[in-house]
Amino acid sequence: MNAAAPFSNAAVRQLETELVLSSWSVQSQLNPLVIAGGAGCMLWDYEGNQYLDFSSQLINTNIGHQHPKVVKAIQDQAAQLCTLAPSNATAVRGEAAKRILARAPQSGPRSFKKIFFTNAGADANENAMRMARLYTGRDKILSAYRSYHGNTGSAIVATGEARRVPNEYARGHVHFFNPYLYRSEFNATSEAEECERALRHLRRVIEAEGPTSIAAILLESIPGTAGVLVPPQGYLKGVRALADEFGIQLILDEVMVGFGRTGAWLALDHFDVQPDLVVFAKGVNSGYVPVGGVMISDQISEFFQNRYFPGGLTYSGHPLAMASIIATLDAMAEEGMVDNARRIGEEHLGPGVKALAARHPIIGETRGKGVFWALEFVSDPVKRTPLPPARLAELKAAALRRGLLVFAVENRFHLAPPCIVNADQVKQALAVLDEVLAEHGKL
Amino acid sequence: MNAAAPFSNAAVRQLETELVLSSWSVQSQLNPLVIAGGAGCMLWDYEGNQYLDFSSQLINTNIGHQHPKVVKAIQDQAAQLCTLAPSNATAVRGEAAKRILARAPQSGPRSFKKIFFTNAGADANENAMRMARLYTGRDKILSAYRSYHGNTGSAIVATGEARRVPNEYARGHVHFFNPYLYRSEFNATSEAEECERALRHLRRVIEAEGPTSIAAILLESIPGTAGVLVPPQGYLKGVRALADEFGIQLILDEVMVGFGRTGAWLALDHFDVQPDLVVFAKGVNSGYVPVGGVMISDQISEFFQNRYFPGGLTYSGHPLAMASIIATLDAMAEEGMVDNARRIGEEHLGPGVKALAARHPIIGETRGKGVFWALEFVSDPVKRTPLPPARLAELKAAALRRGLLVFAVENRFHLAPPCIVNADQVKQALAVLDEVLAEHGKL
Ligand SMILES: Cc1ncc(COP(=O)(O)O)c(C=O)c1O
Ligand SMILES: Cc1ncc(COP(=O)(O)O)c(C=O)c1O
Repeated sequence: MNAAAPFSNAAVRQLETELVLSSWSVQSQLNPLVIAGGAGCMLWDYEGNQYLDFSSQLINTNIGHQHPKVVKAIQDQAAQLCTLAPSNATAVRGEAAKRILARAPQSGPRSFKKIFFTNAGADANENAMRMARLYTGRDKILSAYRSYHGNTGSAIVATGEARRVPNEYARGHVHFFNPYLYRSEFNATSEAEECERALRHLRRVIEAEGPTSIAAILLESIPGTAGVLVPPQGYLKGVRALADEFGIQLILDEVMVGFGRTGAWLALDHFDVQPDLVVFAKGVNSGYVPVGGVMISDQISEFFQNRYFPGGLTYSGHPLAMASIIATLDAMAEEGMVDNARRIGEEHLGPGVKALAARHPIIGETRGKGVFWALEFVSDPVKRTPLPPARLAELKAAALRRGLLVFAVENRFHLAPPCIVNADQVKQALAVLDEVLAEHGKL
Repeated sequence: MNAAAPFSNAAVRQLETELVLSSWSVQSQLNPLVIAGGAGCMLWDYEGNQYLDFSSQLINTNIGHQHPKVVKAIQDQAAQLCTLAPSNATAVRGEAAKRILARAPQSGPRSFKKIFFTNAGADANENAMRMARLYTGRDKILSAYRSYHGNTGSAIVATGEARRVPNEYARGHVHFFNPYLYRSEFNATSEAEECERALRHLRRVIEAEGPTSIAAILLESIPGTAGVLVPPQGYLKGVRALADEFGIQLILDEVMVGFGRTGAWLALDHFDVQPDLVVFAKGVNSGYVPVGGVMISDQISEFFQNRYFPGGLTYSGHPLAMASIIATLDAMAEEGMVDNARRIGEEHLGPGVKALAARHPIIGETRGKGVFWALEFVSDPVKRTPLPPARLAELKAAALRRGLLVFAVENRFHLAPPCIVNADQVKQALAVLDEVLAEHGKL
């Protein structure tokens, strides 16, 4: 196909909505934004309209769009070797694993030894759960109601939120309530109380399910799609202690929050906790090529040294993906992107959303870290009634008309620009939101 | 990473086996072949050794290695836009869907309307099963014991072979015996008898499971990893008739056999059968970028027009994958590759393996179509005793020492060169095998 061919937005939209079944949608209601290209925090369509991308697509382009070093690495690897079976070896695979292991959790007794590569986040979770089950010889996976872990057979049943319900074809999954002070399940009134009560609840679930039946606890370090639910300090450490007490493996899902998103290489770095397995995708290569994987700590790596690992996939360790990981992680380090994400969060985006919330009572709460923030909209700030979907859609459309793309879910905007976002772009986005809320955000 | 950096095979092998957990393996036993690059049917390592690739890696490089048009399409798309959320639209997605729908099953009352894109074969099967379950409102999936459908939660339990057993965490799967005359489950002595008895067996399983509990029958058009089990003429048509009789959806998995492999665009084209859903991956873009998907016929497309589809993934319709599909399918058509695969199978590879079998009684049976053939090795041709794994490994190593890479599984070699293979290369491969069997293939 000729990349320079003249397309109209309408023609592209029409062909795609006619021929492509779209994820998580009623097909007759699609009206997608059309995108032709991008650079950094910007995207554009086929007709010259520009958008400031505060969604990072599905919160994956941590490095921004079209980073020249990553584009070049993909092009160079494409020229050399596009595809290779996982049973054969090639230089980029070991090098990519080395780069990822350099960012593995440091604070704790475990050292991380190996990477298992998958195509995305869902199948990475599948393999982490498989490893924990085989290692422990136990069956059940405990995970949080407020969570999303992907859409393959077991990952979607590990998922806690409503998208699980039409897809419950896997067994061995039990859900518990994770901390969320603003809508506490535990009638807590402070972070400390929420933390303590959530841990007590988890202990009771473990006891009631039977500790020796539980292979793993699977948690997003910071639940993302569920609402950027930054856990209280002490929660993840408390979960680790429970896991240790009962011989349970701890899996942290860093698919959305890993590799810079929260102003640290991994979100778990904020919480002084070391899991047994770390699941990653998205940020590891900003999604330039589909890839995901599992970081495996020493005891589980050792376990499979002399035992058959009954898992695999055709594109495990795909050369194009490997090359993109190497270039992404090198560029992120060289260009100080993780530190930029932290600084932007502390100095601009964090204070900015707080100021916005102070001016607009429709914002019930703001939460976040780094370049990962949620604005929770309410139609009644006292009762904390979630803003109805139609009104959220109206806010989203109003922002888009002003050139700002946000990630909208339930009654929230998630503001998640690339880690390279600068102070001016944050200012611009906040100004758009201020205008939108002034016009459409009356209670 | 510098693509021109000097690597040694040993250093690449060592880094990868140390840091990367390998699919379907005991990690301490790894000794992978090292590959640096390739072109067409050839691969080479970092030290100048060349290999003739009759494995097409995991039987995916139908177009051969490093086809210049596909490499260029990936590079061009990389320069324009690497990644995009599935909720936004872009030109390559509709165009890729159009190319695939042009190859959808034609012979039957259904027209195929839409494509759902995934990252690979396993998650494509997951989504096909999901669609059938939602469309029928029924639960169970029937699939064959001799089958492989991928390694995510439900796909691995739909899989019939032994790799399912340590992974049985999905519910709603029932397995039946598919036809395999050489090792008949039905005491049949002819193709016609095997066909008739396999269909009667399937009818009994349907009746015994309760027809109204069954959402779909999932079958590889030609079971691949299970042994290139070309079904008797009439079998798939018979399955279609049973599906129609009981209101069951028919899903054909064309992940390994689709897009040229068997000398037809789809393997189902050989059997005058039209399924409701077709699952694809591998050949659709030769695996140059991870991708898979589902071809959806009219009635199921219509069903989701006004209903929510509860499935999705971050990289559904990934731009790099889409660009590679367009270039692959265009090049395959322009360069007559499917016809080449058919002709090579009929005139060279098919007759060649038959001649080999006539000379070497260790070959118990040969089966295949196009550029997809199995040599089944036996230690006793009368009892049909499968050759032990150690001896198969010895044969594989002997071929590799002579520069020939084959796909080895259980007691078989699968010969599956790219669709662009020529008569000389086939001759060369058969000569190597003749030598290997003369030296190591005594009964
Ligand atoms: C925390 C988390 N885990 C897993 C996934 C699934 O990733 P994928 O869509 O790549 O399968 C997501 C996707 O949003 C996610 O946010
Ligand atoms: C028939 C069939 N279906 C599904 C798959 C799974 O594909 P993937 O490994 O890309 O998930 C395979 C892989 O070999 C296959 O041969």
